Amino acid sequence: MKLTMELGARSHDIIIKRGSLGRAGMLANLTGRVLLVTDDGVPAAYVNQVRQQCGRPEVLVLRRGEQNKTPAAWLLVLERLQALGFGQSDMVAAVGGGMVGDIAGFAAACFAYGMPWCHFPTTTLAQVDAAIGGRTGFELADSFGNIGAYHQPIIVIIDPDTLATLPPRHHASGLAEALKTGLVGSGELFEALENGPPAAAIERVVYLSVRCKKSYVEQDETGRGVRRLLDFGYTLGLGIKAQLGGTLLHGECIALGMLPMLESRTLRRRVKAAMKKLGLPLCAAVDNEKLLAHVQKTATGGACRVVRVKKPGQGYLDTVSLEELRLLLDEP
Amino acid sequence: MKLTMELGARSHDIIIKRGSLGRAGMLANLTGRVLLVTDDGVPAAYVNQVRQQCGRPEVLVLRRGEQNKTPAAWLLVLERLQALGFGQSDMVAAVGGGMVGDIAGFAAACFAYGMPWCHFPTTTLAQVDAAIGGRTGFELADSFGNIGAYHQPIIVIIDPDTLATLPPRHHASGLAEALKTGLVGSGELFEALENGPPAAAIERVVYLSVRCKKSYVEQDETGRGVRRLLDFGYTLGLGIKAQLGGTLLHGECIALGMLPMLESRTLRRRVKAAMKKLGLPLCAAVDNEKLLAHVQKTATGGACRVVRVKKPGQGYLDTVSLEELRLLLDEP
Repeated sequence: MKLTMELGARSHDIIIKRGSLGRAGMLANLTGRVLLVTDDGVPAAYVNQVRQQCGRPEVLVLRRGEQNKTPAAWLLVLERLQALGFGQSDMVAAVGGGMVGDIAGFAAACFAYGMPWCHFPTTTLAQVDAAIGGRTGFELADSFGNIGAYHQPIIVIIDPDTLATLPPRHHASGLAEALKTGLVGSGELFEALENGPPAAAIERVVYLSVRCKKSYVEQDETGRGVRRLLDFGYTLGLGIKAQLGGTLLHGECIALGMLPMLESRTLRRRVKAAMKKLGLPLCAAVDNEKLLAHVQKTATGGACRVVRVKKPGQGYLDTVSLEELRLLLDEP
Repeated sequence: MKLTMELGARSHDIIIKRGSLGRAGMLANLTGRVLLVTDDGVPAAYVNQVRQQCGRPEVLVLRRGEQNKTPAAWLLVLERLQALGFGQSDMVAAVGGGMVGDIAGFAAACFAYGMPWCHFPTTTLAQVDAAIGGRTGFELADSFGNIGAYHQPIIVIIDPDTLATLPPRHHASGLAEALKTGLVGSGELFEALENGPPAAAIERVVYLSVRCKKSYVEQDETGRGVRRLLDFGYTLGLGIKAQLGGTLLHGECIALGMLPMLESRTLRRRVKAAMKKLGLPLCAAVDNEKLLAHVQKTATGGACRVVRVKKPGQGYLDTVSLEELRLLLDEP
């Protein structure tokens, strides 16, 4: 399947196809100089497969894990690009998950004031969410103050076969982002996830997630409007992550952050049932007062901008006070 | 005088007026939260003057000097923005020269994926060149591999009165960039500089420089085409700077780098006479072989992209081999 992100001069294709990694070189036109950026959590077989299809490949292996999504990792990519004498006509190719894409893409955004890049996402989270929309960068401490740039790739090539090597818990964490997208903008996607991990139907879940996110990005590339709907679960989720990021995965935190923002008890029950089937936690030892203090840092005049969901596929932007948020946290 | 940089949604005014720093708050609409970024080489009086016109000002003082135009300085600005809880609707204001503008502007480009900034250039180099066109960022080692973004300010306010406190040698170094712009694109500007430092007429020199650079930026915002003409003197100049940057100033290196790229001996004589009157060096103890080795790093297949000048105001893009460059270096 092929979708095209329509963004004028920054338009690009998103390929979703089993085995597409085997055609990466042709699809992304990797005949020239390419710096493949990956991390040590990505199976070497995937990187090698892409490398073999490149004209003049170089490889940089970062350390895995969100704790390594740092300015230092970004500088490492820049310094390698410089040492190799790369320029605006060469290419950066990210092979890996969201962390690799964020760091490699942001390096491509800034090196020589912008050079082309492409992404081969190999994790569920990256395939359904992070690789779509060109948002790149890193966070400073505390998950606040996102640093980065919108720098669209020239192509995104999604090979769902690469998910076979992903630990089940990481797969579930990635599916939490698809669940998020479904709740906000696609009842069809939510229903595809309600019966648990989609297994053979993962290609369809990726497709529905990408299609939905794509429509938001096309309307609002830089996240000042409707694209913010995709931050559903993040207001609380990032606060939960600040407390429990050592034990919970990103998607697990976001899923937990979504629950209080569902409008009705009925919907919460339904989403919890889906989360359980997907293998996501339904509760965590969160200190609610600390959580509210964390949220308060992002609030303007005591009002928090949040995303709420009425029914699957019907998210909306809302503003709640910290007091209202406290009440929502206490609901069953 | 007011010029408007016409760049669609990124259009902005450039004010050139003695005393305009005294109206900074009104001109740039500094009623909200503003982080003033400056360095310890900028007279505190200028920063205080702007601060007094801000609604809710904060100040960050960087260390002066190009050697401090580093990722660390950039991160310092980002961390301060984060600590202050700034967001996309707040403002960064650079008060200082090119280094301050480059670092503060690039921080504004990346913080929260882009927030507004404005620049009050207080050095000759920044007023005639660096503050115009939205190119922000820093260099990695060796002046190679520029890292950064094109992030246009919302306004540039140039107060030529601030140049009164600038050491004469720094003033001359800044005028070298005006000389460059004149040689490439404005015979009128070149002639205005031929009789030495313009003193009372500095406002006109700034105006002519800004107007000329503006026209290139409007045609080619991201420097892939005609804007590259403004790199005149840089191919050799940055190589000279790599050798003698400890003793020579930036503009001095660029001026020296221009001389071999002037087409005729007559023109070289004329430019040398102007440089002498402006207080710029006419020669330096450069190791030409080292210089050529430095240039070679940026060459593609032995060919160097350079800018040459036929007559004042008539620059053009050219490609020369290293051998040709060697011959040009040997000409008197």
